[in-house]
Amino acid sequence: MSSPSSPERRGVALLGSTGSIGRQAVDVLAANPDAFRVVALAAGRDGRMLAEQARRLRPSVVALADRDALAGLDLPTGTDRIAGEDALIELAMRDDVDLVVVATGGIVSLRPVLAALRAGKVVATANKETLVAGGHLVMPVARGLAADRARTDARDPFASPLAWLRPIDSEHSAIWQCLAGESMSSVAALVLTASGGPFADATPAEMAAATPEDALKHPTWTMGAKITIDSATLANKGLEVIEAHWLYDVGYDAIEVVIHPQSLVHSAVRFVDGSLKAQLGTPDMRLPIQYAMTYPDRRPSPATPPDLIATARLDFRAPDIDRFPALRIAREAGIAGPRASAALIAADDVAVARFLAGSLDFPGIPRLLEAAVERFGGGGAAPEPDVEALVALDAEVRAAFATGPVRVGA
Amino acid sequence: MSSPSSPERRGVALLGSTGSIGRQAVDVLAANPDAFRVVALAAGRDGRMLAEQARRLRPSVVALADRDALAGLDLPTGTDRIAGEDALIELAMRDDVDLVVVATGGIVSLRPVLAALRAGKVVATANKETLVAGGHLVMPVARGLAADRARTDARDPFASPLAWLRPIDSEHSAIWQCLAGESMSSVAALVLTASGGPFADATPAEMAAATPEDALKHPTWTMGAKITIDSATLANKGLEVIEAHWLYDVGYDAIEVVIHPQSLVHSAVRFVDGSLKAQLGTPDMRLPIQYAMTYPDRRPSPATPPDLIATARLDFRAPDIDRFPALRIAREAGIAGPRASAALIAADDVAVARFLAGSLDFPGIPRLLEAAVERFGGGGAAPEPDVEALVALDAEVRAAFATGPVRVGA
Repeated sequence: MSSPSSPERRGVALLGSTGSIGRQAVDVLAANPDAFRVVALAAGRDGRMLAEQARRLRPSVVALADRDALAGLDLPTGTDRIAGEDALIELAMRDDVDLVVVATGGIVSLRPVLAALRAGKVVATANKETLVAGGHLVMPVARGLAADRARTDARDPFASPLAWLRPIDSEHSAIWQCLAGESMSSVAALVLTASGGPFADATPAEMAAATPEDALKHPTWTMGAKITIDSATLANKGLEVIEAHWLYDVGYDAIEVVIHPQSLVHSAVRFVDGSLKAQLGTPDMRLPIQYAMTYPDRRPSPATPPDLIATARLDFRAPDIDRFPALRIAREAGIAGPRASAALIAADDVAVARFLAGSLDFPGIPRLLEAAVERFGGGGAAPEPDVEALVALDAEVRAAFATGPVRVGA
Repeated sequence: MSSPSSPERRGVALLGSTGSIGRQAVDVLAANPDAFRVVALAAGRDGRMLAEQARRLRPSVVALADRDALAGLDLPTGTDRIAGEDALIELAMRDDVDLVVVATGGIVSLRPVLAALRAGKVVATANKETLVAGGHLVMPVARGLAADRARTDARDPFASPLAWLRPIDSEHSAIWQCLAGESMSSVAALVLTASGGPFADATPAEMAAATPEDALKHPTWTMGAKITIDSATLANKGLEVIEAHWLYDVGYDAIEVVIHPQSLVHSAVRFVDGSLKAQLGTPDMRLPIQYAMTYPDRRPSPATPPDLIATARLDFRAPDIDRFPALRIAREAGIAGPRASAALIAADDVAVARFLAGSLDFPGIPRLLEAAVERFGGGGAAPEPDVEALVALDAEVRAAFATGPVRVGA
């Protein structure tokens, strides 16, 4: 079994290969055959695309959540198939896997992430539940792996928890890149940028009347529907604030949000001496996906580099908390702890689905978030939730808000 | 003798303590008594200020170029005095000095820089001749020191030539900070920013009629007269292109210049994967001075951190080579080699002095630069100049252009 820092090709398991992030990760794997051995690909329902990816990348094994569809897949010789609930966990823990790329959604991804980390694998994750709901579970494991390396050599690039639990999000990738070669004790604040979404300049009345079609018009990024609506409410940025807290072990008062309509500055870090480092890039997820896979190295990528002269102008302004209450609600949920954060992220999934289906208006999204955090986010001195408790809480929140009117302070 | 990377207090010799950079370095030393032992302060003529600094910092020794004034200085007990031409070299090589901060101007600073590096000291330099004229002499010594460290531990922060020859310039400090934790093989291009100076939006006719008073109105930085005029002609940026070539061992085609009127982005690095990292800061030289002294650590500083929201807007545009020919002339001189670069920087000193004295108009500055490079920049297959040849060339250029009309292609 090769070490994750070995110059040999790293064995990769890609979980969620047919989604937006997964497909781009497939492109990165296909473009860098000298860096990666593709061990496993796993998908939910899209068997046709999975088979196509298998023919392209020749993995040792594929998994599909849909058991019947899996049996009928036209796979290349040499590619096995596995099914079942625990397939993702099994793939993540294989001896020939060094790096697990998690591009699956939902709280269920927490189990393979924890299994992989506990087996000493590197995890690159685009899954928001990993940190928002499970930060208190995954970070101690990542810190333990880093501490083991630090005991041998404090300058080992794997002596950082971020080398083990790697963010794929462009904002967190930006902060991670700005932290390269820096000590966490030098960090004064993290600055998350947000495009502001399609309603950056909308009036409250316009936002109240917004249709799904209006909200899906993202000004700078082309992404899935869920994340585009999250950008419109700024719930996305709120979730990133919570992720930042866990990933970088930084207090909420040192995590700032700045509206930056051009989406060229992906985020920044301010240091104790007054210096600020920012990472810029064109809106192309292949760059942060690849960085999470090649760290501590960089490799050429097809991403167009940012052109400051062509961009000409970068704007920054404070977010309007009155128009975007999701940002405040998320921050409060983060401060309240894992139960409130887990309720928040489950509620957001329900709220966005209901908005897209027409059973909730746009201002109803933050209203539902607040109601869910209020109702399920308590717990006070209760022990922090384990995976089972988080999965149960997730289901409870979804059931409670699936239908009916949403009232805050009820 | 303590190693430069030791956690003990570093012994510092500050050469040029009474100039603009020197006075700010004194502030950094005074604010960090737990990090630095002030061993030596050296100045040119301002004995009163030197004595005042000595009373504040209690160095072991002071030097003043003016021998008579030195004898009359009112120094604290325990502070010795030395004089003479070789005083700077003697101070730079002292056993109890770990770090030599070079805030002196002119080609003469090259001797103490080389002496310090050859004695295994860290040099932090604000002196432009060090690299523009002497890059081919100083960088091999810095690389040798770095290679010695790399043999023991490739991840040692002192395994980089920049740890030994540290830039104080805000632009080069920015690039250096962006390179922390990155491999030079990942660098695609360096992006130097320039404010554009007071004539950023001036017409050629306005520039032809510009008075010293006009040219001294720098929009963002408060600096000495020489460097302010250099910012108005962009000669400053041209010199920084040459410095970047030597410091970072990057080809001229990978060194870009971008006009950025707000001077908040101090410079940036583009990587092979399409990522770009930028360093931002308010215009306060105490930050890069301190970073050059505390590397690889950062310490709190009195520099106000940049405020993206208050700044609101950052602009970028291409430099206008027609209106600012000094940029082209400098780049060509850099490509031509050390003799041309040395002629350029000596000529710039003469040209700015003549412009300030009224014996040269503003367009005469680049005209004089071009004439000097043409006349003294040749040499073809001649061996690269040593320190003696550089000092002689400097004197020749100054004598040739001190008075009289300036003609190009004569």
